[in-house]
Amino acid sequence: MKFGGTSVADLERIRRVARLVAAEAATRPVAVVVSAMAGKTNELVAWTDAAGPAAESLGLSDDEYDTVVASGEQVTAGLLAMTLRNMGIPARSWLGWQIPILTDAAHGRARIDEIPAEALTAAIDGGEVAVIAGFQGVTREGRLTTLGRGGSDTTAVALAAAVKAAVCDIYTDVDGVYTTDPRIESRARRLKKISYEEMLEMASLGAKVLHTRSVEMAMAHGVPVRVLSSFVEPGEGQGPDVGTLVCEEEEIMEKRIVSGVTFSRDEAKISLFGLPDHPGVSSRLFGPLAEANVNVDMIVQSHARAEGAANMEFTVGKRDAARAVEIVRAAQAEIGFADLSVDEDVAKVSVIGVGMRSHAGVAKTMFGALAEKGVNIQVISTSEIKISVLIDAAYTELAVRALHAAYGLDQV
Amino acid sequence: MKFGGTSVADLERIRRVARLVAAEAATRPVAVVVSAMAGKTNELVAWTDAAGPAAESLGLSDDEYDTVVASGEQVTAGLLAMTLRNMGIPARSWLGWQIPILTDAAHGRARIDEIPAEALTAAIDGGEVAVIAGFQGVTREGRLTTLGRGGSDTTAVALAAAVKAAVCDIYTDVDGVYTTDPRIESRARRLKKISYEEMLEMASLGAKVLHTRSVEMAMAHGVPVRVLSSFVEPGEGQGPDVGTLVCEEEEIMEKRIVSGVTFSRDEAKISLFGLPDHPGVSSRLFGPLAEANVNVDMIVQSHARAEGAANMEFTVGKRDAARAVEIVRAAQAEIGFADLSVDEDVAKVSVIGVGMRSHAGVAKTMFGALAEKGVNIQVISTSEIKISVLIDAAYTELAVRALHAAYGLDQV
Repeated sequence: MKFGGTSVADLERIRRVARLVAAEAATRPVAVVVSAMAGKTNELVAWTDAAGPAAESLGLSDDEYDTVVASGEQVTAGLLAMTLRNMGIPARSWLGWQIPILTDAAHGRARIDEIPAEALTAAIDGGEVAVIAGFQGVTREGRLTTLGRGGSDTTAVALAAAVKAAVCDIYTDVDGVYTTDPRIESRARRLKKISYEEMLEMASLGAKVLHTRSVEMAMAHGVPVRVLSSFVEPGEGQGPDVGTLVCEEEEIMEKRIVSGVTFSRDEAKISLFGLPDHPGVSSRLFGPLAEANVNVDMIVQSHARAEGAANMEFTVGKRDAARAVEIVRAAQAEIGFADLSVDEDVAKVSVIGVGMRSHAGVAKTMFGALAEKGVNIQVISTSEIKISVLIDAAYTELAVRALHAAYGLDQV
Repeated sequence: MKFGGTSVADLERIRRVARLVAAEAATRPVAVVVSAMAGKTNELVAWTDAAGPAAESLGLSDDEYDTVVASGEQVTAGLLAMTLRNMGIPARSWLGWQIPILTDAAHGRARIDEIPAEALTAAIDGGEVAVIAGFQGVTREGRLTTLGRGGSDTTAVALAAAVKAAVCDIYTDVDGVYTTDPRIESRARRLKKISYEEMLEMASLGAKVLHTRSVEMAMAHGVPVRVLSSFVEPGEGQGPDVGTLVCEEEEIMEKRIVSGVTFSRDEAKISLFGLPDHPGVSSRLFGPLAEANVNVDMIVQSHARAEGAANMEFTVGKRDAARAVEIVRAAQAEIGFADLSVDEDVAKVSVIGVGMRSHAGVAKTMFGALAEKGVNIQVISTSEIKISVLIDAAYTELAVRALHAAYGLDQV
């Protein structure tokens, strides 16, 4: 069971979590992963910001950042263990270094190397609820690390794999994974099951439920992950029809062609005009961007009417847009383009489904539905199980609803 | 160098501490011990209180209390290390378990067993400022512990012993140890040096500067401890005439007969009347009190005029008074006293000095000075290097000033 910061924001909510854990522990062995109390991580991060970066000669202070920030989850783990004992449930807290959750030394965004879980497993087998501080680990040299974005979910999945758990339940503020965002399409339905591959695409393409990192890890280790609401009643979380199970494709009986529609407004489109139409242009353009860690997503190249000249459009994350433009302009002479424009007023809308592999006509349905509503498609990119289109951001909701209906996702 | 919670209460004060450390580190290798930011420990303790005691079958939750509370010092250590690096000073934080500071498993009031300081010493020798989280340790089983009252001072002294430091500087809100409390006697003078034995008596008898525990440890390991103000200017702390050095008696050239006058209003006097005057009464009286962990301090027995009957007076800490009375009353038949009274309106005033060992007349001076001011002495107790008297609390300041003058402590 994994609970995020909002679920453990104060003592009252920690008691609520304890009741959920108690109901679960009455029927099977349980390990719980907790985040820091909501707001605490921000407070700690603000302090590290105020302490300032290390002098240049000393490199980064990311190891000390981790030492400070990891204290947040430590507090929650101790408090939840105490609360469980107060209810008569044997429990103890486990900090990352106590298990240990061994990571590399990439402080602030460490990756888990190995979890020698013998002691932890023995404690759980002995009937004790293990309350684990999420988001943190330790290097082989004994320095604290934090896992970065999606860290607590990743801790939960990695531990579920390490202790060979039957399922990893991620308690969150939504009651499962939906066919699309219910705030935009009220007819969105909760999916009972979704495959790892689809979940991974959904997470990459805008669904905020699970971080891609934890889904990747679940897929790699075959850990069934269930997304469910932390507002269920104690005991209810064990029901068969609660939440969404993220699992192997083979376990999903009822196959759908398309499982969900996602969107993201975090995109910016950069267009280059009048490029020389000869080999090597792409590498001269995208090489420097890759070196600067700017992630380029969709790319389309088109031949301009003027002979020997092409146009190129590509998207980057909105927060990288200014930097990307700077880099591209700096290399203007080398790349040889005539003009450049940036459009931040775009959205990426995607349809995702493993059924695409075996069904033709998915793209046709998509383009038809958008055309019918007058939505112009600027860029298209596809993978085996998804199609994404870049459109004018003003059409986002319209496009999402049109696609949701076109694939019959609103039919119960 | 050790800094308490007030000295590291916010980022600005942590920067001030960093400047003090930087000035020191420019001239010699430095290790720094820090407490939690003022207020943080209280917040953490309040949360553990709200989490509640463990169900009876599960014993205490003191191990989880320690896990939660130890996070406070962890945050300060990380922030100070970052701040030092920001100033270009190589530094790293060391948590209790990272050194490790090995303690017993008496959670909440653990005692240090051993500090294998090889790694810490190597880091310090390598030119790095070691920033150590005070107040915490770890059991051999890898569970976090806290040291209880006076814990951070004790960490500092124990580490000074482990790394064979030349001196352990305790930065505090006063600039040293005074001949008496300057708030009561403006002519009180700062002592340049004081022996461990005198400091120990002073700490036991009301001086709040250092906790007895850290002084005991300093005495046991021969660690010179200096008490000085955290409001000194950077660099000034290295001056020869700053603060008070607590050291071996032999190192104090200028011997004094009396070094200081202390007082404590935390006493209560319990009087028993009409006790049978035969052997065994004392053990029947004090046995049950000892069993209940009530610390009995001063004791005086006097024969009443009625043949075969005696009176007994003794003092206990004010917070133990009600419990002590309850225990004594419950044993009234067995002890056989006729009547009992409690007086909480008393104060213990003490004069302390190693010179008493070789000088007669110290008590005579004390009693004379008090008599001259009309202060009635209720109970007297003595040790080799101190004399304490119990008086009416209303006379406290008068008595302190009279004794301060009588031993010439106000003479520069």
